[in-house]
This record gives sequence, C-alpha cells and structure tokens, in this order.
Amino acid sequence: MGDELNRGLEGIAVAETRLSYIDGEEGELIIGGFPLAELAGNATYEESVFLLLNDRLPTATELDEFRADLAARREIGSEVRDVLRRAAEADEPPMDALRMGVAAASLGTDVDSNESAAKRAVAVFPTVVATYWRYRQGEEPVSPREDLSHAANYLYMLNGEEPTDAAVRGLETYLNTVVDHGLNASTFTARVVVSTESDVVSAATAAVGTLKGPLHGGAPGPVLDMLREVADGDDPRAYVQAKFDAGERLMGFGHRVYRVRDPRAAVLSAAAESFYEESGDTEFFDTVQEFEDVAVEMLADHKPGRRLETNVEFYTAALLHGVGIPKDLFTTTFAISRVGGWMAHCLEQLADNRIIRPRSHYVGEKGRTWTPAEER
Amino acid sequence: MGDELNRGLEGIAVAETRLSYIDGEEGELIIGGFPLAELAGNATYEESVFLLLNDRLPTATELDEFRADLAARREIGSEVRDVLRRAAEADEPPMDALRMGVAAASLGTDVDSNESAAKRAVAVFPTVVATYWRYRQGEEPVSPREDLSHAANYLYMLNGEEPTDAAVRGLETYLNTVVDHGLNASTFTARVVVSTESDVVSAATAAVGTLKGPLHGGAPGPVLDMLREVADGDDPRAYVQAKFDAGERLMGFGHRVYRVRDPRAAVLSAAAESFYEESGDTEFFDTVQEFEDVAVEMLADHKPGRRLETNVEFYTAALLHGVGIPKDLFTTTFAISRVGGWMAHCLEQLADNRIIRPRSHYVGEKGRTWTPAEER
Repeated sequence: MGDELNRGLEGIAVAETRLSYIDGEEGELIIGGFPLAELAGNATYEESVFLLLNDRLPTATELDEFRADLAARREIGSEVRDVLRRAAEADEPPMDALRMGVAAASLGTDVDSNESAAKRAVAVFPTVVATYWRYRQGEEPVSPREDLSHAANYLYMLNGEEPTDAAVRGLETYLNTVVDHGLNASTFTARVVVSTESDVVSAATAAVGTLKGPLHGGAPGPVLDMLREVADGDDPRAYVQAKFDAGERLMGFGHRVYRVRDPRAAVLSAAAESFYEESGDTEFFDTVQEFEDVAVEMLADHKPGRRLETNVEFYTAALLHGVGIPKDLFTTTFAISRVGGWMAHCLEQLADNRIIRPRSHYVGEKGRTWTPAEER
Repeated sequence: MGDELNRGLEGIAVAETRLSYIDGEEGELIIGGFPLAELAGNATYEESVFLLLNDRLPTATELDEFRADLAARREIGSEVRDVLRRAAEADEPPMDALRMGVAAASLGTDVDSNESAAKRAVAVFPTVVATYWRYRQGEEPVSPREDLSHAANYLYMLNGEEPTDAAVRGLETYLNTVVDHGLNASTFTARVVVSTESDVVSAATAAVGTLKGPLHGGAPGPVLDMLREVADGDDPRAYVQAKFDAGERLMGFGHRVYRVRDPRAAVLSAAAESFYEESGDTEFFDTVQEFEDVAVEMLADHKPGRRLETNVEFYTAALLHGVGIPKDLFTTTFAISRVGGWMAHCLEQLADNRIIRPRSHYVGEKGRTWTPAEER
C-alpha cells in the first residue's frame, strides 16, 4: 500500500522521447527537432513520418522509396471490406469502424518486423476510413492509387476524383500539425501496449480506441456546426453571449496544456487562409477569423485569468471542412495523422523497453466467506 | 521538464479499486473481497463476473438471469466469422484473431450502455476464439448453446461435444483464478482507454493487444512442452540441470510480484489434482508434482535468495491441458477469463473518472530548419 496514488499521472514522465516537445507556457511545439511552423507547411505527410521514424528528413531518393513503400501497403482484403460495409449499414460510428478495420490490418500482409508493420498501419488508415465512408454514402469503395501521395490518395478515395493541389496542401499541413503531441492518452496507450513486447498493429488498434473518447479526440465536428451557424448569419457577439448565458462551454477555445494560443492554431489558421484564398471562398473564412477575434475578447472579459485561447480544434474544423473532409470524419482524419506519431512512439519504446505496470490501492473488503447461491 | 521520470511506473498507484488485492510478500490474493481459495473452486465463472461488476454475489434468481443474459450475447455475425476464417487460413496467431474479432464485437448488437457492452464483451470472447480455432482445424464453427454455462459452452464450441463435469469444474476454477490481478499492464491499458470516456469494447480490444505481449501473457504453452518432455521419460533432475547448464530460464517459476509461492499456483494445483483424479489420469499429474518439487529445490540451491517459487503458468499448463484446451489457446483462454476483470475495471474507472495522461521528457534536437528534399 506504500505506493503513491496519482490517478491522472500528473507530474510523472513515463518516457524519454525524441519525437515531440511541448512548452505549454510559451506556446511552443517541436516535432522531430523542427519548430511546428518550420515543418507543417513545408513537408509532405510522408516526410513527416519518415522524420519521426528516422530522426532526420529523407533524401530525395529515400523519399521516393518511402512514398512507394507506403503506397504499396494501402490495400485491404475483401473480408475487411465486408466488416466495414456491415459497420456502415449498422450506423456504427466512424471511430468504431476504424478500430475494426485496423484490428484486422495484419490480415493478408507479409510484415516481418515492427518497422514494416508500422508502415502498414500508417498506409492503411485512410483506406479503412474511406472504404467505410463510401459504404455509408451508399457508394462502392474507391481503390487506392499508388501514384498519388498519401494525402491526395485519401481525398481521392473519399470523393472518387483527384483533389486540387490546394486541398492536398491544406490536408498535408493538417496531417503534419497533429502527427505527434507528447504523451497524450492515445500515444501513452500505444506505448503501454508494446511495453509488453506486443506488436504495433495491436498498439495502433488500442490507440484508436483511446482517441475515440471525447475527452481526447475532442469535438472539431461541433466547432464546425458553430462556425456554420455564424456564417449563416448569426451575430458572433450574440452567439457567444448566448453560450455564456446558457452556462455552456464555447468549443474551440482552451486547452489542458497550453496557457497561450495553441501553436497548432496559428499554423492551421495560416493554412486555412491560404486554402480559402486559393479556392476563392474567402467569405466563410472571414467569418471564422472575425468569430475568433470576438470570442477571444469576450472570453477574456467573461473568464478573466483563465487564458482561454483558440485551440487546435477551432482551425481544424475550418481547414478540414474547406479541403472536403466530411464533419463526421474529423476525428478519424485526426487518427490518420496521429498514427504516424503512435508508430514512431512504439518503435522508440521497443528500442529501449521497460514494461509499464503501475499499481492500485485496494479499498474493498477482505475476509468474505462463500455461501452457495440458494442460501444468499 | 520538471516531471519525474518513472519509465515503469513503479511505486505509483493509478487507481483505487474494490476488485482485487495482491500481497506479494505474503502470497495473498483477494478477488472481490474473497480470498482466492474461498472463491475459485466454489464459484461458476458467471458468479465471479457478477461479483466483480456488483461487489457482491448474486442471489439464485439474479444468477439465473445473469447467466441467461450473458448466454444471449454469445453469437457473432457472418462478417466476423469471415474475418476469423481468413485469419485461420493466413495462420494469424490466436491473440491476433481474438483482437480482430473483439474489435468488431459491437457489430450487430444492440448495446445501449457500458454495462451491456461489458456483458457483450465477456460473452463473446469464447465464441471468437472457438470459431477461429475450428477454422484453423479445418472444421466448421460450432454455434454457441444458450443452455450451457459459460465454461461448458466454450469447451463445447471448441470440441463439438458436451464436456464432462470434471472438465467444466476445472476450467471454471481456472477462469475464476485469473479473472483479476491488480493493475497488470492489460488492465491498466483498459482503464487508460476508458479514461478518455471511450467505450468498453475499445478497452477490451486494447487489453487483448496488451496481453498478447510475451512480457505479460507469459508462456504457459512452453511450460506444457516441458512437462510433456518430463512425462515422456526425461529425468526431472537432469532436465532442470540441463537448463541451468545452458544458462536458460526455467519456465513456470518466479514472478515479478510474488516473493513466495503464487497463491494461484496452489489453487490451480488443487484443481488439477481433482481433475486428474476424477478423470483417472493420475500418471501425468504425478510427474507434474514431482517436477515441481525437484525444480523448486534445485532453484533454491542454484539461485539462493531469489525465491523462485512455482508461478501461475506452471499449473495453468497442467490444468488447461487436462481439461482439453489446446496449448495454442492457453493465452486466449487467459483472455477469456481476464475480460471479466477488464470490464469491471472499466466500469469502476468510469464511475469516478479522471483522464490518465502522463508526460514525457524531450531528449531530441530543437532548432532544425527546413531544406527541400533535392538539397538534402
């Protein structure tokens, strides 16, 4: 019983990592050695994943090989498609469908190491999500295309047509921005799973199940509903005031770690601005920016000292909506990015492993004695 | 960076629990308020699960209802069967097949609460394992029978015939013995998953993936190989000495927590003795007991002060082999028991939840600057 009780594991570091660094006070996020703003808008998603797996960027030749390697691992078998079709017909939520598909991701593959299984996991997430989504729309799945980049192929499988460069760049920036973020609950889960020397597909499946929880995966979908209400004519100031009056939380603001503006919000805001400018739809984005200004100002007045700044969900909603990701797939798209971080964390854990096994405090009875059912 | 680094979470308690209590120094294990020996040989598995979920034993009427409720939740759909068939054909290991089947366990069910999803998870594990196993043997799956108990139905689905009472009682005692054991890595994983307010099927899937790891799920299979070699004529003393000479670990002895004989070994030893006596095959069991005596004595001489006592795996192998569980299914049968504990821990966590989110220490670079691929 001498163990210290710490139910949230606050103040405990369970791993040393080279993958990402968060300074919540300064609003600083480093991914693979790069300040987020240096990486997110420049890299393809494949470069970000290579960076996390290898602690350096690939050469041009290595990048070509890595892209081809991932692209060749995108297919899923007919048994997995049938499960996803059934999940769509049964109205299973997207994250449940993703869990089912990822759990079976080792089927029909010829992975011979944790490294190749990690690449399989990264490669197959978009196929699982898009296949489920097509069925849910009453359409046949679109097979992945090896000649498209990871991000472009995801949009292609969702919509059945090649995406614009602007949409691909916007999605790519999003995928890079949320690819890793310290030991959040899903990443921690992945490390606990492989700490028993289990495999990385099991870890990815477990992490999907953790990210599914609303305390973690968050609520970018409802943020979009809010932005659309305002874009459709609601006065921003009146909208925010109504939330305050109802005692409701304003979604898209505040974060457990960041005391200043989430650095990811800045990067996604710039990406969204570029995207909406290139695609000519500046009206919606003007509303989004105006709403952010109004909300931050009113929150500062309403909750002085709380520093409720714009968080990553706010501009996630604006950007993903722009590039053509359906609102119902915001969290699965988050997972499509984060699996790169999960896999890198798994390989990092396995390279210098120690089983993660805390204790519990027993607060129950001790000396119960048995009585047969008929005497109870 | 001020967070203390503790890579294995040693000395940290992450939860208060009423489910089980381990005293490794005294060799004491309490499950749901009962000393293990008081519960394991008396209860049906359904009673143990009810106990963990409700912190008391059911009345006779409640037990009937609970058994019927679980029994009605055993079926899996044809899509899941197809995945398991494919897994069997592709020689996927049993724990991978279980992960695939459990991940899809919510399909086709009408669960409306964590409680009903927990019952679904407990009920469906044996069906998933037995279905996969039948395909792997080149046979058609056997549908579950609602009139049989949880343990009896598992054996029935594996073998296609009703098991003997002795086999059911032996399996039942095993299932009760390993149903919960503090915050081991898989149970901890389950609690981390639901700490984001995710669901219990996601938690069960994640826990299967964690239990799969050899540092956790252990090696009862190889223990059986060892016992059979000795039963087939190897001299126990020579066998153990050969292991020592080769510098190999003797499987079935020693445990991270217990410094004395694992209390589960005592319970399983008694259960195995009863089973082999009733079934008339005492020769194998005599060998097992003789081997234990020789090995413990020789270990004490070989590693003085290490207190390498018989662990749970040793008698798991002897007992499960006796009741007719194939060696390849020892770890999945462990999971079929432990899912009861996982589900109870999930509901306990959710009843008074706090997100479990430790930190990491960053040891990577910080100021990298971007260069395009062609310039690297």
